[in-house]
Amino acid sequence: MSQQKPVEYVSATPEVKAVFDDIKATRGVPDVNNFWKYIAQHPPTLARTWGSLKDIMADGALDPLVKELIYIAVSVTNNCGYCVASHTAGARRAGMTDEMFGELLAVVGMANETNRLAVGYRVPVDPAFE
Amino acid sequence: MSQQKPVEYVSATPEVKAVFDDIKATRGVPDVNNFWKYIAQHPPTLARTWGSLKDIMADGALDPLVKELIYIAVSVTNNCGYCVASHTAGARRAGMTDEMFGELLAVVGMANETNRLAVGYRVPVDPAFE
Amino acid sequence: MSQQKPVEYVSATPEVKAVFDDIKATRGVPDVNNFWKYIAQHPPTLARTWGSLKDIMADGALDPLVKELIYIAVSVTNNCGYCVASHTAGARRAGMTDEMFGELLAVVGMANETNRLAVGYRVPVDPAFE
Amino acid sequence: MSQQKPVEYVSATPEVKAVFDDIKATRGVPDVNNFWKYIAQHPPTLARTWGSLKDIMADGALDPLVKELIYIAVSVTNNCGYCVASHTAGARRAGMTDEMFGELLAVVGMANETNRLAVGYRVPVDPAFE
Amino acid sequence: MSQQKPVEYVSATPEVKAVFDDIKATRGVPDVNNFWKYIAQHPPTLARTWGSLKDIMADGALDPLVKELIYIAVSVTNNCGYCVASHTAGARRAGMTDEMFGELLAVVGMANETNRLAVGYRVPVDPAFE
Amino acid sequence: MSQQKPVEYVSATPEVKAVFDDIKATRGVPDVNNFWKYIAQHPPTLARTWGSLKDIMADGALDPLVKELIYIAVSVTNNCGYCVASHTAGARRAGMTDEMFGELLAVVGMANETNRLAVGYRVPVDPAFE
Repeated sequence: MSQQKPVEYVSATPEVKAVFDDIKATRGVPDVNNFWKYIAQHPPTLARTWGSLKDIMADGALDPLVKELIYIAVSVTNNCGYCVASHTAGARRAGMTDEMFGELLAVVGMANETNRLAVGYRVPVDPAFE
Repeated sequence: MSQQKPVEYVSATPEVKAVFDDIKATRGVPDVNNFWKYIAQHPPTLARTWGSLKDIMADGALDPLVKELIYIAVSVTNNCGYCVASHTAGARRAGMTDEMFGELLAVVGMANETNRLAVGYRVPVDPAFE
Repeated sequence: MSQQKPVEYVSATPEVKAVFDDIKATRGVPDVNNFWKYIAQHPPTLARTWGSLKDIMADGALDPLVKELIYIAVSVTNNCGYCVASHTAGARRAGMTDEMFGELLAVVGMANETNRLAVGYRVPVDPAFE
Repeated sequence: MSQQKPVEYVSATPEVKAVFDDIKATRGVPDVNNFWKYIAQHPPTLARTWGSLKDIMADGALDPLVKELIYIAVSVTNNCGYCVASHTAGARRAGMTDEMFGELLAVVGMANETNRLAVGYRVPVDPAFE
Repeated sequence: MSQQKPVEYVSATPEVKAVFDDIKATRGVPDVNNFWKYIAQHPPTLARTWGSLKDIMADGALDPLVKELIYIAVSVTNNCGYCVASHTAGARRAGMTDEMFGELLAVVGMANETNRLAVGYRVPVDPAFE
Repeated sequence: MSQQKPVEYVSATPEVKAVFDDIKATRGVPDVNNFWKYIAQHPPTLARTWGSLKDIMADGALDPLVKELIYIAVSVTNNCGYCVASHTAGARRAGMTDEMFGELLAVVGMANETNRLAVGYRVPVDPAFE
């Protein structure tokens, strides 16, 4: 009753198919992953999310691998199981090595620890950081 | 009554002074920032946290700038004001440009959005990501 | 060893049975859902939680459907799988359409994104909002 | 050094001015609030965020007041001070009464409480909710 | 416009005054702290929250100091500045020493770190823990 | 592809075996739990995490059971399923009774509720708490 249903390509509207086609062409994959099939239940969300993600994750001042590492850092902090799995796979495809992954999680863990220490000790911002 | 008090160098114990000296030497700064002065109220936490942070943030498979970007991503997601201010300053020192910062926050914002969409739509992990 | 066990009606104490009976009568359902069976392991928590929830979710200045939408928004942001599933079902019963659900998640996703942008850019509160 | 600077209309680029103009026209306000001035430091983020927000918060299956209530629910749960202040003001403009605000926060508080109870008791999803 | 206003005793309704009186008598304090004055804007929330808190924080299988330590742990993890300040003061009154506070924050920091490592490495629950 | 693999004792490096041996000896268990096997994929993280945890969770100004209760409070608030399961088991071994567990979760739930009320009502810190 609360369960969502994925939208598969064959039964998608032309509007949804166009987004799926652009995802597949941009990423060079034969099918879109579950995230896109599920949010396709609300076509405006599908179109807007893909449009934003395509722009944001493109090569720029930060390269795609760094962007994937940042995505994992957020997803781990938010405890989003799907997102950790999909972006870890994405980072692997973009060149993340085991050593990079180990260092990434070490930084994420440490940041979560020191964030709480700063809050618990009620540390005021240094004038030099303002 | 709940307010914490910073430990200043002149009144610190030799144990705390040694950690402060190592932070100053490692970073080439004349004084440690507030975070260290406040957690120095509990010397074991000061020593352990600095030891871990020094190891984790050192140059490795990921360079120090990328590590600072990851630190900001976590701190923004956790809404830690002190940490956002101090690590944004740290990332600037490590070479972060305005454009990099803009892209970093765009990725952080997007990841927080799609994390919630994945949870809300209850998206199951694709077999390919397992 | 850490696994919790649900309290079923037949083996419940009179105190727990009374709460279960009130939940069933209030909601017009033949049995209570797992949430109540699990927290019934601590009867004071069961009684207090049901008493509070019954008051808070009743029709008032906000109608029950709007309250269910707010419940989903919080549960998605906290990434509580059980709560997303149960309150999505609850909102459906209260009249939530597919279109409403799509718009709800779009707002939730967007709010999570702009919350992080406000924190990352360290935006000061406008005097007009104080 | 880590402090961000707002982009004021008079010194904005034509691209940024166009977004500011659309925000002012859409909302019927003489100036944009700080959020927009700060994210304008990264023009692509400004344009994309406004475009998305304008679409998402428009009247639809959910009316603008309900959407503002949902925005507050997320912002309170994420503890975003700026967002709570600005969206509480926004909801007031959209018709939120004191009584509605009181009920909104009661639901938000309760949802945060029961979310944690569901996690702590490790409650499995009922088959009826799948 | 979004700013809330505290309800002071002299101008409170009899219903609110009765709750304020009970808080003052239970805690042996001359006035209630800001939290109660602000939530008193919605009297049902004031009455329900105080009733629940009074029951939950009473001496039981866990003593009041341990309960205050748990309250701080949650408040630090949620980054609630007000709550960290007020419950740190509350724990001090209940007997928390500097050393206890240092150890508390060390555990809180560590738990936040290992929580993220467990999520990032996608660690499956051991059969022995089920 | 994103799935992590546990490091089993028989195939571990001497460096990892030494940490596993110390965990087993310290805890008096025949094997380490999954958390350690998974983070052992990055040996520096394994060594540092175990070293920190061993120090932090030792008997001190707070006893081990209280520390386990705090660990559960953080893990529930962060919604870390693995951590809730493993630390609930750990607290049971350290002497946590059903009644203690019920009171712990009641405090955790309440703290999460009042944290949000404090944020939503934008309660300023009382001068007495500074």
